[in-house]
Amino acid sequence: MNYPNGKRKTVINTVKTSVSNRGMSLEEDINTSNAFYLASDEAIIHKKPTPITIVKVDYPTRNKAKITEAYFKLPSTTDYNGIYKGRYIDFEAKEIASATAFPFACIHAHQIKHLEGVLRHGAIAFIIIRMSHYGIDYLIKAEDFLNYYKNADRKSLPYSWIKENGYEIKYSYQKPCDYLRVIKEIYEV
Amino acid sequence: MNYPNGKRKTVINTVKTSVSNRGMSLEEDINTSNAFYLASDEAIIHKKPTPITIVKVDYPTRNKAKITEAYFKLPSTTDYNGIYKGRYIDFEAKEIASATAFPFACIHAHQIKHLEGVLRHGAIAFIIIRMSHYGIDYLIKAEDFLNYYKNADRKSLPYSWIKENGYEIKYSYQKPCDYLRVIKEIYEV
Repeated sequence: MNYPNGKRKTVINTVKTSVSNRGMSLEEDINTSNAFYLASDEAIIHKKPTPITIVKVDYPTRNKAKITEAYFKLPSTTDYNGIYKGRYIDFEAKEIASATAFPFACIHAHQIKHLEGVLRHGAIAFIIIRMSHYGIDYLIKAEDFLNYYKNADRKSLPYSWIKENGYEIKYSYQKPCDYLRVIKEIYEV
Repeated sequence: MNYPNGKRKTVINTVKTSVSNRGMSLEEDINTSNAFYLASDEAIIHKKPTPITIVKVDYPTRNKAKITEAYFKLPSTTDYNGIYKGRYIDFEAKEIASATAFPFACIHAHQIKHLEGVLRHGAIAFIIIRMSHYGIDYLIKAEDFLNYYKNADRKSLPYSWIKENGYEIKYSYQKPCDYLRVIKEIYEV
């Protein structure tokens, strides 16, 4: 729509932060950030491949195997891990639409157990939650999350708690989910 | 074939150690060992899922997604990683039939780069080589491997070098590839 001064008003860009406008998923943003950390040799953190059970493989040509039947498996660990300054890093990332809470059902029981385990062994472990409604990414320390989770009489993490206990992750073009910046601030590394 | 004393000679079972007789792959043996380490809470180390590119997914029933077209991808990291006593652990495992050498072609360029990277960041990194011919598993420190690899005028690691520089990994029923025992001996953890 054109205004009298001849300028176009870009209505779409009026939501609070930039995150929800980019149209990229949290996974893509974390992968881009990880690629930057890798290229700048700051940290080596990768997403694990999606676990699947392969049932049938065809060989249409001699060197190209084609999987023709496979099923998704429940992951037994979190999706991301790696190393930063000698420390083992481990986290799960979830994007949610709800404006009010993060449902515990988003994290499988195996992943909860995994987070408890790696924490006990000295990892830096956390959960990244993208609240799409607000366009904000939060880093929640695994110890804080687990503490709430175990004592909760409800089945979700309220937004008020996330705002108070989570750490906002800043966006930049090269590091759209710059969680390493938060790690540097809140952990002794 | 029957001998005069009535006993059958089991020709197949005459190789030196138990490893090659068990009929289990190195991957299965490492997974079994990792499961033991996990259950005894000694270490949390997992094999990463096989990386694949998913092209087509069908939904024959409402909740069951069936992958009907997918392809194997080259891995960009090693296959195994995790945490032990606060240290980041990273390794690749390969089983070879050759009695004389371990071909460098078994390790992709990406994996070499990955091993160099995690070492630089303070990881405990290594390669496990099963020499099926001898029925022996060896742990080779990544630093030793990389040092030889970079200065080599040949395209493989000779068995004589592996015997001299590698550490033999013992077999036990519960931990068929007990590499953690070697880690305890040769690294300061």
